[in-house]
Amino acid sequence: MSLLREAPPQVEHAVIRVRSGVWTRERDVLAGEEPLEIRLLWFVDGVEQRKSIAVTMRTPGDDYELAIGFLHGEGLIGSRYDVVDVSYCTDPDEPQMFNIVNVTLRPGLALDLTRLERHFYTTSSCGICGKAALEALEVAGCTPLPDGPVVSARVLQSLPATLRAAQAVFQRTGGLHAAGLFDLHGNLELLHEDVGRHNALDKVIGARLLAGQTPLSERLLLLSGRASFELLQKALVARIPFVAAVGAPSSLAVQTAQAFNITLAGFVGADGFNLYSGVERVLPAGDDLTSNPTPAE
Amino acid sequence: MSLLREAPPQVEHAVIRVRSGVWTRERDVLAGEEPLEIRLLWFVDGVEQRKSIAVTMRTPGDDYELAIGFLHGEGLIGSRYDVVDVSYCTDPDEPQMFNIVNVTLRPGLALDLTRLERHFYTTSSCGICGKAALEALEVAGCTPLPDGPVVSARVLQSLPATLRAAQAVFQRTGGLHAAGLFDLHGNLELLHEDVGRHNALDKVIGARLLAGQTPLSERLLLLSGRASFELLQKALVARIPFVAAVGAPSSLAVQTAQAFNITLAGFVGADGFNLYSGVERVLPAGDDLTSNPTPAE
Repeated sequence: MSLLREAPPQVEHAVIRVRSGVWTRERDVLAGEEPLEIRLLWFVDGVEQRKSIAVTMRTPGDDYELAIGFLHGEGLIGSRYDVVDVSYCTDPDEPQMFNIVNVTLRPGLALDLTRLERHFYTTSSCGICGKAALEALEVAGCTPLPDGPVVSARVLQSLPATLRAAQAVFQRTGGLHAAGLFDLHGNLELLHEDVGRHNALDKVIGARLLAGQTPLSERLLLLSGRASFELLQKALVARIPFVAAVGAPSSLAVQTAQAFNITLAGFVGADGFNLYSGVERVLPAGDDLTSNPTPAE
Repeated sequence: MSLLREAPPQVEHAVIRVRSGVWTRERDVLAGEEPLEIRLLWFVDGVEQRKSIAVTMRTPGDDYELAIGFLHGEGLIGSRYDVVDVSYCTDPDEPQMFNIVNVTLRPGLALDLTRLERHFYTTSSCGICGKAALEALEVAGCTPLPDGPVVSARVLQSLPATLRAAQAVFQRTGGLHAAGLFDLHGNLELLHEDVGRHNALDKVIGARLLAGQTPLSERLLLLSGRASFELLQKALVARIPFVAAVGAPSSLAVQTAQAFNITLAGFVGADGFNLYSGVERVLPAGDDLTSNPTPAE
């Protein structure tokens, strides 16, 4: 897999800055936004099949990770070994814009594309509702996470400051969502940013899957914004036991976390957090039996 | 059209609140999140046709407005008169969950559903890219906005405080995106909130379309978050000349604003803003020839 990359993740742009009544012409740095098309390739009796699966607006960069993470979250690939190749499309009829990624699946992989079309909302007797969305996750083979591991409240509270310090791009453009993957001591292992918050998480999970390091059952996830159903769904498929969000969770995010035994914390900051689910995995700082492995502030 | 509404926009939930090491059990209010399916109904030679167009996660409430605004943004309906009826699905085979909205189109309306499937990214010779997305808007019939009207910088700067004061739901859940529609004096005319920022804007535009009050060529739009391509696309179709965002715009949002002569301001706050496009429509406060129609702070 090459690391070719064309479209820039950041774009310079002229801007008129107005502050306290003073107008100045400056250069601003914008978060890049371009469409990405994800195409599946596979073989049936030796004949190549192709299908365009999705088009998503995203910040260019780490496109292979985004494509792989997306396919994993949709349940189409389970591990690194389901993927034979990932490459940018080099169709001679279409100029190479680095906006189309081809994912070639391993021969023999069972592929249920109806899941993409029907998605997961309409499998329940209730027609279409949040409960149906949860039931559909079960039907798709998602099971609740096992109990454990445990982290200190102090570790949870340390995550946002660690993420912000690492968000070099965010500091410049102010326009990006971030998803960070941490070990149980609060050390940041991986950070991805994107104009779309789903994309940032897909890039994190896709990178780990490509490295053969899934499931992520000993990791914490921090989201720079709010926690919605679809983000919890992706965390569940990747088997991440801790989802922490700087913002608020939605009702369905909380229901999903409870149904599948995910620890969900919202409004996470240096001084505290709100726990919506999975309190058993969080150790009050006073009861913290281990020394804090992160450097003291 | 009835005002039946079942799923609540807010949901109470038990939460453990951790602050400064103190753990307390409280009740929290979450932003509701449930799937909404939008179905089109129309007649061909007297025979009813049905098609499910989209499923989106949304905050329940104002679902008719959301469906209509979505269809308008996708170019499927142009005005109030293209819609014969909007109602919740009352299929006897499916329990009424108020999560399916049927939109019946007027007889004879030209309907190009291939636009939904192909969407707008792949119409250009460049294959798939941001430029193709802009060109596709032209192909779909979008033309640049005419010059004018003009507003004072003071009016722009007043918008976020006005929106925040009106965001009653936001104050409680902290989990909602908001879109506000203002007149040229900075008076808030309409506010909608949703877990999805696209949905909040669809609800605003859909409400105005249902009231027969489109196009919105004498209005300002304020977005509580960032400005992305798809939000600019919706504003363009609704012919809104001013898009102001509390957060940053993406690169493609700026390109769209420039290509279609939309005034785009980011980082809008009481002390100033950044202007990315359409500076001619903004009057410096010092040159403000009219008295400020909003009450002084």
